[in-house]
Amino acid sequence: MARVNEHYRNLAANYLFPEIGRRVAAFAEANPGAELIRLGIGDVTLPLAPAVLRALHEAVDEMGSAQGFRGYGPENGYDFLIEAILEHDYGTRGIATRADEVFVSDGSKQDAANIQEIFGADCSLLLSDPVYPVYIDSNVMAGRAGALGPDGRHAKVHYQPATEANGFAPDPPEQRADLAYLCSPNNPTGSVLDHARLARWVNWARANDATLIFDAAYDAFIQDPALPRSIYEIPGARECAIEMRSFSKRAGFTGLRCAYTVIPAECTGSTSTGERVPLRELFRRRHATKFNGVPYIVQRAAAAVFSAEGRKQCALQVAHYMENARCLREGLATAGFKVFAGEHAPYLWVRTPGGLGSWEFFERLLAEARVVSTPGVGFGPAGEGYVRISAFNSRENVDEALRRITRAFSTGAA
Amino acid sequence: MARVNEHYRNLAANYLFPEIGRRVAAFAEANPGAELIRLGIGDVTLPLAPAVLRALHEAVDEMGSAQGFRGYGPENGYDFLIEAILEHDYGTRGIATRADEVFVSDGSKQDAANIQEIFGADCSLLLSDPVYPVYIDSNVMAGRAGALGPDGRHAKVHYQPATEANGFAPDPPEQRADLAYLCSPNNPTGSVLDHARLARWVNWARANDATLIFDAAYDAFIQDPALPRSIYEIPGARECAIEMRSFSKRAGFTGLRCAYTVIPAECTGSTSTGERVPLRELFRRRHATKFNGVPYIVQRAAAAVFSAEGRKQCALQVAHYMENARCLREGLATAGFKVFAGEHAPYLWVRTPGGLGSWEFFERLLAEARVVSTPGVGFGPAGEGYVRISAFNSRENVDEALRRITRAFSTGAA
Repeated sequence: MARVNEHYRNLAANYLFPEIGRRVAAFAEANPGAELIRLGIGDVTLPLAPAVLRALHEAVDEMGSAQGFRGYGPENGYDFLIEAILEHDYGTRGIATRADEVFVSDGSKQDAANIQEIFGADCSLLLSDPVYPVYIDSNVMAGRAGALGPDGRHAKVHYQPATEANGFAPDPPEQRADLAYLCSPNNPTGSVLDHARLARWVNWARANDATLIFDAAYDAFIQDPALPRSIYEIPGARECAIEMRSFSKRAGFTGLRCAYTVIPAECTGSTSTGERVPLRELFRRRHATKFNGVPYIVQRAAAAVFSAEGRKQCALQVAHYMENARCLREGLATAGFKVFAGEHAPYLWVRTPGGLGSWEFFERLLAEARVVSTPGVGFGPAGEGYVRISAFNSRENVDEALRRITRAFSTGAA
Repeated sequence: MARVNEHYRNLAANYLFPEIGRRVAAFAEANPGAELIRLGIGDVTLPLAPAVLRALHEAVDEMGSAQGFRGYGPENGYDFLIEAILEHDYGTRGIATRADEVFVSDGSKQDAANIQEIFGADCSLLLSDPVYPVYIDSNVMAGRAGALGPDGRHAKVHYQPATEANGFAPDPPEQRADLAYLCSPNNPTGSVLDHARLARWVNWARANDATLIFDAAYDAFIQDPALPRSIYEIPGARECAIEMRSFSKRAGFTGLRCAYTVIPAECTGSTSTGERVPLRELFRRRHATKFNGVPYIVQRAAAAVFSAEGRKQCALQVAHYMENARCLREGLATAGFKVFAGEHAPYLWVRTPGGLGSWEFFERLLAEARVVSTPGVGFGPAGEGYVRISAFNSRENVDEALRRITRAFSTGAA
């Protein structure tokens, strides 16, 4: 009989966001008419920018004409989009990246989940704790993480706690590993890596012949131009780092789906006999076999994000969310909460009051303030005692959420 | 150092279609001005139907309004699309399928590549030869296929030759296997399974506790209403079969990307201790972790395929391609070729003249008729001596291709 992939047994019981969805749905059903404010899942709320809408309409029209119709596109993306990426995401930062190093995809979640496929089953893993669940779960499914212990950790993974003491941005460890996942600006903690910290990671990777998987899905939220937006701003990163970026948050594409991964030509892994293999070639083969490209109309929309108009309009969207983040940061601090991050990321990392557990405080925020958050422990054991608050919402909802939270929980400490 | 996934070493040298692309590009460069007619890759050529275009424009407008904007959607698809699928693809054939058994995706290629992930690494495989390369390559990458032999076959796969003798639709073997991939109407041979043959497969799967992966991406091209369109028309199939369907060919979505997979609740695999696990739950977990849904606007477009207008317009597109197939079948036969299929599929399977090898005839068709075909051997060793001719093109190009092929190769046999 067909055996199932028993590595799935080692997954934590539920993927975090569906679990939150279930709890929120149950609450809504038990409390009809309760007006919930969703600051949980990091989903954008502003409509698509006019430049993006116009590009979509135009591309749809093309698809309706015999001359303009496009069937299968290049698996790795259309040149017009790749060139815009190279110019605006890399050229403007003085980074030389080539078109054949870019892989356009339907999301950074997918890229983060798929990238592990090109590595051997015995690669050792280094992850921060808390961590975006996809990094770990995709490796669990592939059998690379080992059994799930009662402490919520997997036997074959090396975890680095992200704590208040290290600013929620741990430095590389003494020990080596084959693959390390980094996320900056960080989901969930909202921390950000500066040049010095990122350089320590690149140096560690080069010293240990490790590969860094650098998730920069939130780079557009970095407010300080001196902070690195790409890992390739660090010398030597092209030899050891894979980078992922997304249109989801910076341009409201969560429901439109477009992202990309960069694998520099110099970035290699090894075979059991020590031969070096360019990782880019493996991922290209993966894309050719398992992917059929992002819809043409969506790629046109993504390219419009880089137009003069699109850049202006999307920057306004980011500014809106970051002003929300500022309001939340200040309002929650005034209410007596210990609040971290939210300065270069659309997420705040908030200590639960009175030593409450993450899920406990999640339930109380829901019941007493009708506000949906994300329990920190859902991202890993070291997230216990925190919740993540998202800045993706309207100003009205943010203000109302602050009023309700203050009413329900204010300690008057501030 | 990070080890690469060395199973990739067992892949045949190149994924077929990029290889064809390279050869065609080289020819075009060496012969500037040569007007090529592409009957190779199975890509649609007609523009999107008006009903689909209207749905796209409307959905884009929704995404531009605060009320209508949609961010992350349900990973497995919006209810409006799943309900339309259930009603039109299943209800009309008297098949009861439930909403929570349907997984909307961005393509049957992806689904066919991803489905193996939920099975154990030691599952035995049964494949036809020739075969759609994704079935085999996705299993090679996962380490399930074994080494690639000099005969082009993988050590751990049981192949069933699809030959003229069995009508290019082999019956199930004596031996058992855990997973068997079926494709009807078949890509590449264009053969189709009738009720009796499909029932033999379902019975074999049930007798052997095997899982059938039934790819029905081309079901819309079946001309005889008595032929099965879904494997669930066969009693017992819900216990052993996973089905995949696509909007790519029936509605011109190759550049828009939408498909779906059905996994019935009764369809299970087993653990090493013999416990039965619903495959649907594993795939749901996979989708939740590694996928973020199909763009809202594309799902609206797919739903429009099922509207009264959409059904009429898409049926005309299918009829256009099938009339091409008829012209090609008759024209090639008249030119002296031995031609198979093309009656319930947009593909013809054509014996090469004079015992030429597939790639040899591919090159001669390209050089002497400026027609792009697909070498049968690219789909497996048993495809040697055949080429696949696609009916996806304009009538003018089909007629011109026939004139050129007849001029270059006619034996006057007919």
